[in-house]
Amino acid sequence: MNKNISMIGAGSWGTALAILLAKSGYKVKMWSCFEDEIDMINNLREHKEKLPGIKIPEGVFCTGDIEESLHDSKIVVMVVPSHTIRENAKNISSYIKKDTIIVNCSKGIETETGLRLSQVICEEIPDANVVTLSGPSHAEEVANGIPTTVVAASEDIGAAEFIQDIFMTPLFRVYTNSDIVGVEIGGALKNVIALCAGISDGLGFGDNTKAALMTRGLAEISRLGISMGANPRTFAGLSGIGDLIVTCTSMHSRNRRAGILIGQGKTPEEAMKEVKMVVEGVTTTKAAYNLAKKRNVTMPITFEAYEVLFNGKDPGSTVNALMMRNKKDEMF
Amino acid sequence: MNKNISMIGAGSWGTALAILLAKSGYKVKMWSCFEDEIDMINNLREHKEKLPGIKIPEGVFCTGDIEESLHDSKIVVMVVPSHTIRENAKNISSYIKKDTIIVNCSKGIETETGLRLSQVICEEIPDANVVTLSGPSHAEEVANGIPTTVVAASEDIGAAEFIQDIFMTPLFRVYTNSDIVGVEIGGALKNVIALCAGISDGLGFGDNTKAALMTRGLAEISRLGISMGANPRTFAGLSGIGDLIVTCTSMHSRNRRAGILIGQGKTPEEAMKEVKMVVEGVTTTKAAYNLAKKRNVTMPITFEAYEVLFNGKDPGSTVNALMMRNKKDEMF
Repeated sequence: MNKNISMIGAGSWGTALAILLAKSGYKVKMWSCFEDEIDMINNLREHKEKLPGIKIPEGVFCTGDIEESLHDSKIVVMVVPSHTIRENAKNISSYIKKDTIIVNCSKGIETETGLRLSQVICEEIPDANVVTLSGPSHAEEVANGIPTTVVAASEDIGAAEFIQDIFMTPLFRVYTNSDIVGVEIGGALKNVIALCAGISDGLGFGDNTKAALMTRGLAEISRLGISMGANPRTFAGLSGIGDLIVTCTSMHSRNRRAGILIGQGKTPEEAMKEVKMVVEGVTTTKAAYNLAKKRNVTMPITFEAYEVLFNGKDPGSTVNALMMRNKKDEMF
Repeated sequence: MNKNISMIGAGSWGTALAILLAKSGYKVKMWSCFEDEIDMINNLREHKEKLPGIKIPEGVFCTGDIEESLHDSKIVVMVVPSHTIRENAKNISSYIKKDTIIVNCSKGIETETGLRLSQVICEEIPDANVVTLSGPSHAEEVANGIPTTVVAASEDIGAAEFIQDIFMTPLFRVYTNSDIVGVEIGGALKNVIALCAGISDGLGFGDNTKAALMTRGLAEISRLGISMGANPRTFAGLSGIGDLIVTCTSMHSRNRRAGILIGQGKTPEEAMKEVKMVVEGVTTTKAAYNLAKKRNVTMPITFEAYEVLFNGKDPGSTVNALMMRNKKDEMF
């Protein structure tokens, strides 16, 4: 096999993965639609905007020409904002050959359809063999060589193992998991809980409260995932609780930062304006709310988040609503 | 039923629970072997040493006389350091009537026997009906009315529900769980992982690394628990991942603080000396190591912690050992 890997998207996570792969001897051909990004990567050898201070090795190259980026690769890594995944999949579709593996590194649920991102990719590229890579992995830390673990998930476990081999290094440990449904649902819905964890912090609540939110949040994510065919054990893994921990406890998380502002009294609109970047937890809350309604799954935290974000409910009163539900057994 | 509740132990967690119960209208009779503690609670109405600034309501009383503290109560809350649980159970044994419920609030494994604490209590008080209360609950936060959730666990689910009714308030939500094995193993072993999380922080690793440690730590805790008869789902709950989150991410945790010092190059002895109080994760590491050997359970993180704590292994080299294990599927 040749050592070419194509990559659609050249943001912080894409660049971190490109650096990792290039250091392992692969030749990474990135595609970006931003001229300045292409210039930074090819000439400055540093993504000054999103990964400042990190040198990009020689094996990485960036182009604005899709056909050039996809030429002669058996592996295509998609690492774009989740709401652009369908459009990007459509754009590359005609260049993808039958036995190409597509590695999906984006996290979300399509709002209009409720589909997982690998499903969206497969709708646009029917021949696609998709492996989803997910887990607790801040781009800055991976780029700086901090020990990190992730999961490569696919129903085709051979494909997952192939991707495990490609990405694994002494500082980047890759596990496999055949439960792509659970891996994708966990990766998407943790952003809803991170938003709520931020609200709890913004309201001045404590570590006990946040741990409760995360634990019960994981329980309702699991319920939704199981109703969609996921393996319950996946949610106790890296793409479930692992990613949830990183997103709920780190100030790197835009979702958590937006939540803090809402807890402190800002409106959701003001909070999103202040955080500036896309807060994926907001759209994912709507998608999860719709999925839960449709599937008749109890998701009390997501439902309260929906009321706060879309119906102007006071965040403080949601805590009472959550704490005073009927007495329950932990398993239900 | 009368409103009397007895409590053995009057430290920070005991005092926080006594305040909670007294505010719900119960009369709490605490026992302590420390004269100054008895004086602080009865006269100063504040545990100046362990919960400074928190007023103790009228319904709480403390005595050095075991018989007096246990008189006319159907509920005895045991909240003592884990290594004193057998001695304390023995001391109260002859005063316990047949239908008394004992609420165990301590977390650990008896080093010499490998027994869970409710088992130790039952050995000393054969008639005991034990409910274990566990979960993410810093005493300071509970005493300050921060929203908190815990689990009441017993094979006798009626007893667990009875204790749920007694302790539950709008700010202290109690779930039930019939899996006392899982609840006790999770509560004890999280201290081992918190120590390792501290070592990782002390070595200068990142949020990705710590999330990985916590997730894979939970996986090995689950393996040990399942080998002892626990329900795997318990470890995804409040006494599993919930308590693990609080202990691994908070600076309140003595285990984490000791770990940070070890990661920074102190010997385990120096670290324990500097933290001053009992570091339960150290003895629990030994107990867990012995249990895993005996039951033939793979616990790579616990085993590396054992090497660092008891055989002088360099903490930095344990990370390599953990990252470069054979490629694995996440489920195994």
